[in-house]
Amino acid sequence: MSGRPLPGEFALIREVFAPLAAGETGALGLLDDAALIEPTPGCRLVTSVDMLVEGVHFLADDPAFQVAQKLLRVNLSDLAAMGARPRICLLGLAIPKSVDLDWLRDFARGLAADQERFAIALAGGDTTATTGPPCLSLTAIGEVESGRALLRSNAAAGEHVYVSGTIGDAALGLRLLQGADLGLAGHARDAVIARYRVPEPRLRLGMAVPASAAVDVSDGLVSDLGHVCLASGLGARIEAGRVPVSGPARAALGRGTIGLADLLTGGDDYELVFTAPADRGNAVRDAASRARVPVTRIGTMTEGEGVSVLDPDGAPMEIGKAGHAHF
Amino acid sequence: MSGRPLPGEFALIREVFAPLAAGETGALGLLDDAALIEPTPGCRLVTSVDMLVEGVHFLADDPAFQVAQKLLRVNLSDLAAMGARPRICLLGLAIPKSVDLDWLRDFARGLAADQERFAIALAGGDTTATTGPPCLSLTAIGEVESGRALLRSNAAAGEHVYVSGTIGDAALGLRLLQGADLGLAGHARDAVIARYRVPEPRLRLGMAVPASAAVDVSDGLVSDLGHVCLASGLGARIEAGRVPVSGPARAALGRGTIGLADLLTGGDDYELVFTAPADRGNAVRDAASRARVPVTRIGTMTEGEGVSVLDPDGAPMEIGKAGHAHF
Repeated sequence: MSGRPLPGEFALIREVFAPLAAGETGALGLLDDAALIEPTPGCRLVTSVDMLVEGVHFLADDPAFQVAQKLLRVNLSDLAAMGARPRICLLGLAIPKSVDLDWLRDFARGLAADQERFAIALAGGDTTATTGPPCLSLTAIGEVESGRALLRSNAAAGEHVYVSGTIGDAALGLRLLQGADLGLAGHARDAVIARYRVPEPRLRLGMAVPASAAVDVSDGLVSDLGHVCLASGLGARIEAGRVPVSGPARAALGRGTIGLADLLTGGDDYELVFTAPADRGNAVRDAASRARVPVTRIGTMTEGEGVSVLDPDGAPMEIGKAGHAHF
Repeated sequence: MSGRPLPGEFALIREVFAPLAAGETGALGLLDDAALIEPTPGCRLVTSVDMLVEGVHFLADDPAFQVAQKLLRVNLSDLAAMGARPRICLLGLAIPKSVDLDWLRDFARGLAADQERFAIALAGGDTTATTGPPCLSLTAIGEVESGRALLRSNAAAGEHVYVSGTIGDAALGLRLLQGADLGLAGHARDAVIARYRVPEPRLRLGMAVPASAAVDVSDGLVSDLGHVCLASGLGARIEAGRVPVSGPARAALGRGTIGLADLLTGGDDYELVFTAPADRGNAVRDAASRARVPVTRIGTMTEGEGVSVLDPDGAPMEIGKAGHAHF
């Protein structure tokens, strides 16, 4: 990050960011004080903000293209967990002098690629200097039909608990990037690192699935399901043996280089955990099939509070660290 | 900033930030993945994001209460410049270990005070760690009747150019805080420092005034009016002698400790600059009177491009630095 110096803020907006707003009339060409947005009739807007800080959420030598993808995708994952369709995003960049124009262009290319993929336009932002590490903030705005949002508070006792995709890969990827030896190499290693760097927001699943409540796995499966429990005034029981894990994760478990509890509490998966009434199993599977995302039933919502985990033998499992600690 | 350590992220949300979301049902108690918002029928939503970084936009020993006020107000000023009414805000905080609970509580008190004053609720956010200086991001969402937004691109040649309040005080305040001796003391000194630290968003004026185009003065009067010129494909001519300045600024000008050009290019005033047809002068003054904000006509929109400034003798003034350089 020490090549061509940055142009002034306005040249930067014009040359690097304005192309990302093309086609979105409410963005006003990034030339105005703010952006305009109107929900489709019958819809509410859904808004989420997430920040990524270098050294905390991504590493200094992560490619800028992928950092941009991650920044957008962690926010899109929040929209997915509400069942929302993406509309616009606003970008806040605080960057030190060490960030050069090539880095920002690569960042903008990553954002452009994912904006096209997920049908979301850049509509505004702010770019400023910092003496610290790059600090990136993105606000994603989507929309969902009124009354159709997948609120965390909507779960009911007896509902089944499902999760999309596989759990724990991002935690493996982060450990590898931090230098851990998990006995993974080649494609297996690349696959889990890619899951850490570039998560897959489950937007189609969120929009299609007849769920009652949903949350995305950012802090860890147990911790995030705990948020659904708290908001719904319920407990949950999950069977660790049912939690879907990938081939690389199974290999690492087999070698004993990681434990099942590490996968259940690892963050950054950005899968959806959701609940649905027991009699909606077929509808859930149909929606997952249409969205082309595997979903697995892992447990049940219960009376009480908190998440209890049963090990593959049916015995209670001790889950020490229930998720990321941010401080 | 080295007193009580911070609780975990979720305790922090519950104890410090959730009270700021009380009364806003779309905030979902800050317990969900995202917030819900619906514009009033006939309105569009208006969205803006601004970041403040310690050492760049505020100083390490600025009171946290006032930092929160500034963070909210610079965003509200963007809404004011669109003629919008505030609705909700989303807060992104990246904070180093040196920030303690007392600082955050003071910050939250400042935000709460201004949320009440400007009728805006906290509806979501993200809190994370950084190894750098505090980096604060706020997204403000307001609404404006469809077709009533004060776009920068709506100015017409021949329209009068107005500015609210007085120009240049914040630049004086910043220089004083940086140790400059401007010959100001006591109340005059306090007044301009307060204008730098706690700007006054001109929301009532923005909502009431029959303007064609508007912008808020964040980078400097000449620079920001230049944005209106660019977006409208026009030029502007302003008469420096008409630009309203405060008593302290007049005193500093009289002593020669600051020049008129410094005031015209100083940032952080957060006054509104707007244009209106020549025959709407009375309506502009009526609106300003209802909003209880002084407005002054300072010039005229012209064909051509760029902002030309005439000195008090009618001669062209050289304006070297046309606004803040952010890099």
